[in-house]
Amino acid sequence: MDRPNIRNDASVRGFLEHFEDEILMHLISRAQFAANPEVYRRGYNGNTYMGLLDEFLLDLERVFSIRGRYKEPIERPFNVGLPPSHDNRIVEHPDIRLTNYDAVNVTRHIMEGYINLVPRICQKGDDGQYGSSAEHDIAALMTISQRVHSGIYVAEWKRFKEPEKFDNLIAKRDRKSLLEAITNGAVEDEVLRRVHKKATALQSEINPDVRTIVPAEVIVDFYRETIIPLTKEVQVRYFLNRVGIG
Amino acid sequence: MDRPNIRNDASVRGFLEHFEDEILMHLISRAQFAANPEVYRRGYNGNTYMGLLDEFLLDLERVFSIRGRYKEPIERPFNVGLPPSHDNRIVEHPDIRLTNYDAVNVTRHIMEGYINLVPRICQKGDDGQYGSSAEHDIAALMTISQRVHSGIYVAEWKRFKEPEKFDNLIAKRDRKSLLEAITNGAVEDEVLRRVHKKATALQSEINPDVRTIVPAEVIVDFYRETIIPLTKEVQVRYFLNRVGIG
Repeated sequence: MDRPNIRNDASVRGFLEHFEDEILMHLISRAQFAANPEVYRRGYNGNTYMGLLDEFLLDLERVFSIRGRYKEPIERPFNVGLPPSHDNRIVEHPDIRLTNYDAVNVTRHIMEGYINLVPRICQKGDDGQYGSSAEHDIAALMTISQRVHSGIYVAEWKRFKEPEKFDNLIAKRDRKSLLEAITNGAVEDEVLRRVHKKATALQSEINPDVRTIVPAEVIVDFYRETIIPLTKEVQVRYFLNRVGIG
Repeated sequence: MDRPNIRNDASVRGFLEHFEDEILMHLISRAQFAANPEVYRRGYNGNTYMGLLDEFLLDLERVFSIRGRYKEPIERPFNVGLPPSHDNRIVEHPDIRLTNYDAVNVTRHIMEGYINLVPRICQKGDDGQYGSSAEHDIAALMTISQRVHSGIYVAEWKRFKEPEKFDNLIAKRDRKSLLEAITNGAVEDEVLRRVHKKATALQSEINPDVRTIVPAEVIVDFYRETIIPLTKEVQVRYFLNRVGIG
């Protein structure tokens, strides 16, 4: 999967669409374990401010950070203060006009939306499989975050198509008008229809005696209530933090 | 996903079948990146004996080990000498008759089979996305390993059904006869047919302009040449290391 070309509609649209399949797969995988509320309870290990998922995620993000993951604009960490990368390759992102990629980081809101989703896709209760649950949570969270933070490419692509309009709104720092300008209800409906279709197809050969099925409607709701609004919030924040003209 | 009940055919069969969907999803995800041979080349970081994938996998397995992953019989690490678990929960596996779960660990052979698979599912060349490639490799490798090491439950289930026959072969330490006794060609054919069907269904709504499609035949071959033989090898090794009678 190459990074999107903001001068090419199909490239940007395809980049976003590509994450749908990944997100669906991770949510379906997570649903194979019980809701396990213990995974999300703060104080799990005597740490008042963190639960098992938080601790596990921090451990993994430290590894990912050292490996250079957060040099990519759309790979935003859920934690701050991670160790620097040992990967010395320089990765250029000339289209992305941010001095600090974490100026656009909505992971806190992704976490909140995701934790509300878990009891809607998983069977109730506790099966003791906390490690596996957290592992799949993390895979899902990271992929959702990639999709949502791809909003920075979407924003730059929209500005490329209508530079005067967006430069004007950016100059005014007009959050409400920016949100209106990036909103396309017909495209959002199309995404929701496609997600429903994919969620159904992906699970069409699943044996329900063996695996938990995730209702397509629940995933469509998650797109409508969390993924789409946060992708738009990323676009707005991107514009409000964009540096340079043209 | 509960652990299998070795006294129940449907439970053991369902447990194995459940991994098919997970493995397919991870292989399809990996195929979205180029083959990136650099990820597998030893000496990547000046380390003669390890490549990028090896190093990344070791870093993650350290985290997983501390989190208690390897207390599960089917979760076998690809590395040795990992730090001990900080998770003090005792997890009992009364059905599994091993003094050391790593007496049955075929991860080295899984790695070999998997690395041969990568160029068959990915587009040729180098897209620079080494971190993402390695991350998906690791997710795939761990899931394949779970499926393959589930062979210990399969072995115990087969012995439960025919204790005299298996105890006799175990006493003789007769590897060849054990392999014959656990082999069921009709079931293997059924698995291959089902994997083909699932690989097709999973990708039926994929947009080929956006995502690389993995040919169902390639995955069927991987099952035939790597996953099924190694699951059988796990069963044989389990019997050869099984402790106690009855």
